[in-house]
Amino acid sequence: MPTDTRTGAPEPAAQDRTAPAKTAGRPLGLGDVALTDGLLGHWQRRNAAATLPHAVEQVRAAGVLDNFRRVAEQTEEPFRGGYPFADTDAYKTLEAAAYELARGGEHDSGEHDAGRAAVRAFYEEAVHLIEGAQGDDGYLSSFHQGTDTPVEPWADLAGGHELYNLGHLIQGALAAARRLGDDRLLNVARRFADLVVDRFGEEGRAEYCGHPQVETALVELYRETGHEPYLRQAELFVERRGSGLFAGAPFGPAYYADHAPLRDLDTVTGHAVRMVYLAAGATDVAIERGDTARTDHLLRLWDDMVRTKSYVTGGIGSRHSDEAFGDRYELPSERAYAETCAAIGTMQWGWRLFLATGSAAVLDHVERVLYNGFAAGVSLEGTRFFYDNPLQRRPDHTDGRPADPAEPLRRRWFGCACCPPNAARWISGLQDHVALETPDGLTVALLTACRIRSAALTVDVVTDYPWDGRVTVRVLAARDEPATLTLRVPAWATTPRVTVDGAPIAGEPGDSEISHGWLRLTRAWRPGQEVVLDLPMRPTLVVSHPAVDATRGAVAVVRGPVVHCLERADSPAPLDELVVHTVGAGTVSERTAGGDSPSDDPVLRHAVTAHVSRRPAPSDDPYPAADRTDPPTPSTTTPVALVPYHLWANREPGAMRVWLRHT
Amino acid sequence: MPTDTRTGAPEPAAQDRTAPAKTAGRPLGLGDVALTDGLLGHWQRRNAAATLPHAVEQVRAAGVLDNFRRVAEQTEEPFRGGYPFADTDAYKTLEAAAYELARGGEHDSGEHDAGRAAVRAFYEEAVHLIEGAQGDDGYLSSFHQGTDTPVEPWADLAGGHELYNLGHLIQGALAAARRLGDDRLLNVARRFADLVVDRFGEEGRAEYCGHPQVETALVELYRETGHEPYLRQAELFVERRGSGLFAGAPFGPAYYADHAPLRDLDTVTGHAVRMVYLAAGATDVAIERGDTARTDHLLRLWDDMVRTKSYVTGGIGSRHSDEAFGDRYELPSERAYAETCAAIGTMQWGWRLFLATGSAAVLDHVERVLYNGFAAGVSLEGTRFFYDNPLQRRPDHTDGRPADPAEPLRRRWFGCACCPPNAARWISGLQDHVALETPDGLTVALLTACRIRSAALTVDVVTDYPWDGRVTVRVLAARDEPATLTLRVPAWATTPRVTVDGAPIAGEPGDSEISHGWLRLTRAWRPGQEVVLDLPMRPTLVVSHPAVDATRGAVAVVRGPVVHCLERADSPAPLDELVVHTVGAGTVSERTAGGDSPSDDPVLRHAVTAHVSRRPAPSDDPYPAADRTDPPTPSTTTPVALVPYHLWANREPGAMRVWLRHT
Repeated sequence: MPTDTRTGAPEPAAQDRTAPAKTAGRPLGLGDVALTDGLLGHWQRRNAAATLPHAVEQVRAAGVLDNFRRVAEQTEEPFRGGYPFADTDAYKTLEAAAYELARGGEHDSGEHDAGRAAVRAFYEEAVHLIEGAQGDDGYLSSFHQGTDTPVEPWADLAGGHELYNLGHLIQGALAAARRLGDDRLLNVARRFADLVVDRFGEEGRAEYCGHPQVETALVELYRETGHEPYLRQAELFVERRGSGLFAGAPFGPAYYADHAPLRDLDTVTGHAVRMVYLAAGATDVAIERGDTARTDHLLRLWDDMVRTKSYVTGGIGSRHSDEAFGDRYELPSERAYAETCAAIGTMQWGWRLFLATGSAAVLDHVERVLYNGFAAGVSLEGTRFFYDNPLQRRPDHTDGRPADPAEPLRRRWFGCACCPPNAARWISGLQDHVALETPDGLTVALLTACRIRSAALTVDVVTDYPWDGRVTVRVLAARDEPATLTLRVPAWATTPRVTVDGAPIAGEPGDSEISHGWLRLTRAWRPGQEVVLDLPMRPTLVVSHPAVDATRGAVAVVRGPVVHCLERADSPAPLDELVVHTVGAGTVSERTAGGDSPSDDPVLRHAVTAHVSRRPAPSDDPYPAADRTDPPTPSTTTPVALVPYHLWANREPGAMRVWLRHT
Repeated sequence: MPTDTRTGAPEPAAQDRTAPAKTAGRPLGLGDVALTDGLLGHWQRRNAAATLPHAVEQVRAAGVLDNFRRVAEQTEEPFRGGYPFADTDAYKTLEAAAYELARGGEHDSGEHDAGRAAVRAFYEEAVHLIEGAQGDDGYLSSFHQGTDTPVEPWADLAGGHELYNLGHLIQGALAAARRLGDDRLLNVARRFADLVVDRFGEEGRAEYCGHPQVETALVELYRETGHEPYLRQAELFVERRGSGLFAGAPFGPAYYADHAPLRDLDTVTGHAVRMVYLAAGATDVAIERGDTARTDHLLRLWDDMVRTKSYVTGGIGSRHSDEAFGDRYELPSERAYAETCAAIGTMQWGWRLFLATGSAAVLDHVERVLYNGFAAGVSLEGTRFFYDNPLQRRPDHTDGRPADPAEPLRRRWFGCACCPPNAARWISGLQDHVALETPDGLTVALLTACRIRSAALTVDVVTDYPWDGRVTVRVLAARDEPATLTLRVPAWATTPRVTVDGAPIAGEPGDSEISHGWLRLTRAWRPGQEVVLDLPMRPTLVVSHPAVDATRGAVAVVRGPVVHCLERADSPAPLDELVVHTVGAGTVSERTAGGDSPSDDPVLRHAVTAHVSRRPAPSDDPYPAADRTDPPTPSTTTPVALVPYHLWANREPGAMRVWLRHT
């Protein structure tokens, strides 16, 4: 584990961002799990080679380091960027940098090496400036420090984001300490955390931050340090919330998740990112406290969100106004906000709920988010980003801002840049969310190409998932006594097949059954053994719940965990005029295997084929009588390619639809 | 015409808010047209008795008069209300007050007299304070005056609203001068207008206001005064717009209708109210300049708006964010913004387009707005208001703000109070939008109970329209030579019948035909003659254009110009579970005529009956496979009452749908 940050530091034990004390399983992460040549591994390589160097450049250009410098060196420079949470752009980037620098070691091109050097230089400079900017009392929020701050420290908890800043500082610091063995940021984070415990602790002010985030971070800081006051502080922040502290704040209390205590909610509402960050923190606290009643409630809240407030892409947040959840079943495609950060928050919450409950269904939804609502947030080459992720783009789309020809769809960066570095840190830590070590063996939570080392079993997972449903687990090493290999079987796979060393398993109740979304195989494993889980993947038309007005009479095409969409570039007619009849069996890549194009096209090779006909409106009349006689839908159909939703907007800009007319 | 504002003033000639010089017809207004006992007349009586006294109370309570006082008396009081356009709440209220005080003369209850006295006192005090607040140079904007203003005059045209303030000042002043013969406000308005012409005229700064409004007002001021520089100033403001003055303003240029010159647009976009106010002003200018090319373009823009960006209620503005138009066919029911002010702006634009083009189709849409999207903005009793007018309310609806049990739906007033006094002034001037005097006779544009006096004909229009389609026009007086009586025949009336003195007209081409939405009858009219226009009204199911995703597979019920809706109070089951099969023939009132309840209920008496069955979702699965086998829709149906949309939310709060599932 190479690190240039602190010569001679001992190589740290591989630990995990989320390593709860009180679940049956211990998550396996960097060091134990290496993503290999599948899609997730590709994302990580892209992250290291493209996204992270790009983020470093953008964070520098936005003046985020200058903000720390201005405090550290007490200059007269104005604060740059306007947002009091700008510091977190650096913290998130540092978190990602710690992961990718720790991973290191691949033989890259010179260009990649240059990017790596830039990331390393950023890391060093940022840590130095952050150390310098911290106040004598431990306080650190560059917006509120300096001589020209418009807001005094702690004067505006609703909008100030100081505790949110601390949360991301802690997470960056834990990554640096755990991955690089560099405790400098952790010392900064603990001093700030200690100040917070002193100010807001049991006997302190019964207040909390307008933007939840610090809760998960404090629990993780407790896990790392064993210092119980951090856990208690997280618990206090969760439990106090809903007291009406922000009743008079600018966006109304629900925006701050402060309209009611979380424990009293029966549905998620308000600002989507804040709500799922809070729920993730509450789940962490419930895990550590062993509070199953609280966990049960959080699972009900999750289920309600999945059933009534989540897009088919897993996106959440139906409203641009307040970046908020809508009412139940309010899920408009074209104005889906579905913020990339909200997708990350959903996965964070879901992972913790899985740790708390062992639910495979929760992971099914996490996977839906991962491959769709989240993945769309980053461009194919890794340096363009979506902030919001709608499921439809009208041909004449405008959001009222002038279009930038250089960035017609995804953008290079944002004035409010929360999403891009959040995506970078999430991708950098994907291996932490793949597998669990349990007392009786190994659980594979996410099916993806990787190598996993655990006490009981070391295995290679070989698969082209999510493009292909065949997952081969090869045993590389095993302990002597029997161990249970547990693989998740997604619910969409209605007819999974399993072989062990080529022989089908009986599938009878017992130790080889599939139950509640898990395949459990208990054996005295030997190196060389091979388990094959085959999940038949076929493109499927789905409809939406009848209360979803936005997509009534329309169908979406899903294949395994991947949602597809139609882009104008692949359509013979305006998208709004097409009616889908059926969907073909395989992907373009499968059909052209061994042939030539378009199986090499990175967008089209995973496309599926829908059979459509053109059915334009019979008239311009916006509201004709229902009993008019329309021309019948033509029975002749044309095949069109539906590309994976997360790959849309990587070619020429144009209209797009996930939900296609069925009538 | 009683007025206590200026003893001995001559009774002014009845003139009109919109009296263009260059159209074939002269609009007839107060003095020439009296709304009698129909729905519009009822609204005016409610306006005088309830809305206007309520507005006066709220405007006072909000400190709007105090803001003028603070400038007039140079006190140290802070500006109240925060919005730089707060002055217009007073101007709009004064405009309505001038109309209603001028109408006066009805024998009211003591309570009404008390309200009337309060309105009169407000009028006097406000005029006095406004006169006192005006600067020596003519400038008047109480937010920007005073000692503690955060913004200097003219320093922020994007957000400052000073010219917008002038526009409403002019309109209030014209109403006072024309209706009450009181020129005091007009003198104030002219001094401010002259300052504006001096600063922004031909040789002045090529700038304009962030919020269009002054354009229509300046044209009207020109019509009143004959002073051409006012017309030219309006023209300059219209023509300059789109220069990019607000390219860097907070909400992006489209919000300020500044992304392109209006003449270059092929669709309305950006902030809905600003866009239609601008288009109304541009139409006024085109009328005065006799610029038919410009008028043709504005009509195309209108048609595009009606066909692709208008709700079935006539509402516009699909997005809460930026209060903006959506893309074409982006028309979500539940998040329709459809601001009441945008409905008023649409009617203002449409009326001017009608004057410019004579189009009956434009009036059909104006009427759709009037009886639905606009009318819903005011409660049954006239003292509660909607700012936005969605077409659907989910059972668990929240907008993130705490619900106020006292104002669960319509609210008493708003911090940003643009809509309520705007509704009051619009209702006060409805008679100005009913009829035109033409060289050859009289044109009845809006079918409503009224008495119309014109040079050629004086008639009583007797009708219960829009509740009943029979319109009887009784000739009370006629000139000796032949005159043409022209009546609008709405396009929804597919089988209109006409009799003159009981005898059906031939309907052949000629002087008794119905053509392009107009019935023209040229006769040597005699007092006592009676024309009956019978427009069969039956409840009709309509669908939406197939590109409107939000309402696919759903139907709305319209009857004549009135859109109906289903409220939870009238439904046997949750609204989202109901499927509509058919709709009955008559209204509740028609069926129970001569009987007892519910024909007396002010909401239910105009309801129609739909036959529905309950079809709950077969499962909680949000996105099931399309080929699942659902239980069939039950064939047994239940009748439910669908009340007029504009009367919704006058009973207990609950869910509501305009568009009901058809599948």
